[in-house]
Amino acid sequence: MNRRPFLGLAAALLAALVAGCNDDQPTGQTAEPQETFRWKMVTAWPKNHPGLGIAAERFAERVNAMSNGQLTIRTYAAGELVPAMEVFDAVSRNTAEMGHGASYYWKGKTPTAQFFTSVPFGLSTLEMNAWLSQGGGQQLWEEAYAPFGVKPLAAGNSTMQMGGWFNREVNSLEDLRRLKIRTPGLGGEVLSRLGATTVTLPGGEVFTALQTGAIDATDWVSPYDDLAFGLHKVARYYYYPGWQQPQAVIEVLINETAWDSLPPHLQAIVSEAARAANLAMMDDYVWNNALALEELQRQGVELRRFPDEVLDALREESEKVVAELAAQSELNGRIWASMKAFQAQVTPMHALSEKELYNWR
Amino acid sequence: MNRRPFLGLAAALLAALVAGCNDDQPTGQTAEPQETFRWKMVTAWPKNHPGLGIAAERFAERVNAMSNGQLTIRTYAAGELVPAMEVFDAVSRNTAEMGHGASYYWKGKTPTAQFFTSVPFGLSTLEMNAWLSQGGGQQLWEEAYAPFGVKPLAAGNSTMQMGGWFNREVNSLEDLRRLKIRTPGLGGEVLSRLGATTVTLPGGEVFTALQTGAIDATDWVSPYDDLAFGLHKVARYYYYPGWQQPQAVIEVLINETAWDSLPPHLQAIVSEAARAANLAMMDDYVWNNALALEELQRQGVELRRFPDEVLDALREESEKVVAELAAQSELNGRIWASMKAFQAQVTPMHALSEKELYNWR
Repeated sequence: MNRRPFLGLAAALLAALVAGCNDDQPTGQTAEPQETFRWKMVTAWPKNHPGLGIAAERFAERVNAMSNGQLTIRTYAAGELVPAMEVFDAVSRNTAEMGHGASYYWKGKTPTAQFFTSVPFGLSTLEMNAWLSQGGGQQLWEEAYAPFGVKPLAAGNSTMQMGGWFNREVNSLEDLRRLKIRTPGLGGEVLSRLGATTVTLPGGEVFTALQTGAIDATDWVSPYDDLAFGLHKVARYYYYPGWQQPQAVIEVLINETAWDSLPPHLQAIVSEAARAANLAMMDDYVWNNALALEELQRQGVELRRFPDEVLDALREESEKVVAELAAQSELNGRIWASMKAFQAQVTPMHALSEKELYNWR
Repeated sequence: MNRRPFLGLAAALLAALVAGCNDDQPTGQTAEPQETFRWKMVTAWPKNHPGLGIAAERFAERVNAMSNGQLTIRTYAAGELVPAMEVFDAVSRNTAEMGHGASYYWKGKTPTAQFFTSVPFGLSTLEMNAWLSQGGGQQLWEEAYAPFGVKPLAAGNSTMQMGGWFNREVNSLEDLRRLKIRTPGLGGEVLSRLGATTVTLPGGEVFTALQTGAIDATDWVSPYDDLAFGLHKVARYYYYPGWQQPQAVIEVLINETAWDSLPPHLQAIVSEAARAANLAMMDDYVWNNALALEELQRQGVELRRFPDEVLDALREESEKVVAELAAQSELNGRIWASMKAFQAQVTPMHALSEKELYNWR
């Protein structure tokens, strides 16, 4: 028998007797019986994945530390408990109390989910965070996941991504149409409508597909992830800007029954840990993207910018694709109206500030 | 006598006896005697100040909530316990365990402090956060405050500010030289070297000075604060960009002895609450700046952009002023070298991402 909890309690009892019997003043000592929680968090990331995997681990560690072990979260890499694409389901069923992923992975469960990672040509990193916390985004996100008994929290952001890895140059819309490209999500739909052949491939097959020429191009994340994944070894051109992901929210998913079982201070710890993890991941990407971009260029990667003609067509088509998604349901319509209004509202201020800053360099 | 703590303990003891005697498995219950901490946080902000004051209150509330009352922080507006400009000293002397302010206010204590709010034409919001947490900035900041027994944490950011409020147009360097302007910090030094007459005025006197024509112009913060302060009622032109504050870090100051007295889980709560407060304040400013800018324009404020000729001169002079500050001590030299190297490293990535995003709108 482990006697330590018992000895700790005896000491606590003694302290309370000594302090509590003297007067009514705060004693400087409190002791409450504390229910402990041991939670599982399934993630959509391979083991030790840079960036995303680190963000999940960091979040769990900080919750463990802040709660002094009252809420311990053990993380599981994709496939350890459930496959990456079953993370949402696992949390919905309470197989795991928590998940760590990106909302657009769950578009098969609800197409609405796609709004909460990224919208092509949409909000920037600073703006998406502000929309979620100040512009009504969080409430809409909760509404979207409520039918599944899942509560979402923003817990990271990749910041703006790159356009992807190409083995053919894209100098015109005609070049775009000839591509066989792997791009998931709304970006893939846009490319497909513009005439490209888009293919769906699990992450693990992308490297080989590029190497063998089965695909001409793929989007991925940004230099930090892409360097680790080795895509520069099998693709020649690294295209920018990442029109399809001007930022990308990484989420923590929480089973609602599990959430409701937490006392308020542990709910506060989880919420603030997610918010802190969000900024920590932004910092991680800002710095490591910069280092990785330099390394990729050192290794001979050629940077290419999509021509304006192509970007204009992509933007125009993106608007149509997102408008169609918005028309699919009343909730989708409200979400898109809210995001669009938010973007229209913040754009003039950022035109006087962030835009000026990056342009004066 | 308040019997509740005792009754709680008795229940805990019973639970532990029942659970702890059965087997070696986790019992789902822990209870430790917990020392409670009641801290004071003095702030450099007027009572109920939008943005900055809200950020301080929010930080304190979240620490109180997360620690379940084990660490309660009571905030004091400027002047309630100590004047705004004595916050740093009060924390250094442990008159208050914590402070909430901006580092450049303490340049009288150590000129080095100026690096940790903002540098003209320096890092953006995303970059400053990344420099502090990933680029060695936090360690340098701690080194700068260590002689005073004060530990700093980033706990907010105003995001990029505006150039300021003017009653004369600035169409040339000649116009700049004719100005009588209130701009504190490094920006004020830059303007002064370019021939403007810079004056030092407490915040409370700025409104009247502009109204009476005692000054022609002042910098302030950004639309959110400026609208609340009413500067649009006494100034005609609102200039951008805010070259002097491309972001501005808001800090939590902690007396080192007080910090060392905290158990690790409360240190973790304070650190993560600061990081979360940092992002929450960014969100607050992104959204409320946008709303306030619209309102200011509705009220007839005229936006003006500094001409390129003026911005070029400001940038050139800024480099000299910061280089002189860097030459003042070995530590200053290391800080500036670190920041400059960081900016050089992140600029190429942001030229492919953030810059593209704000320019395609």
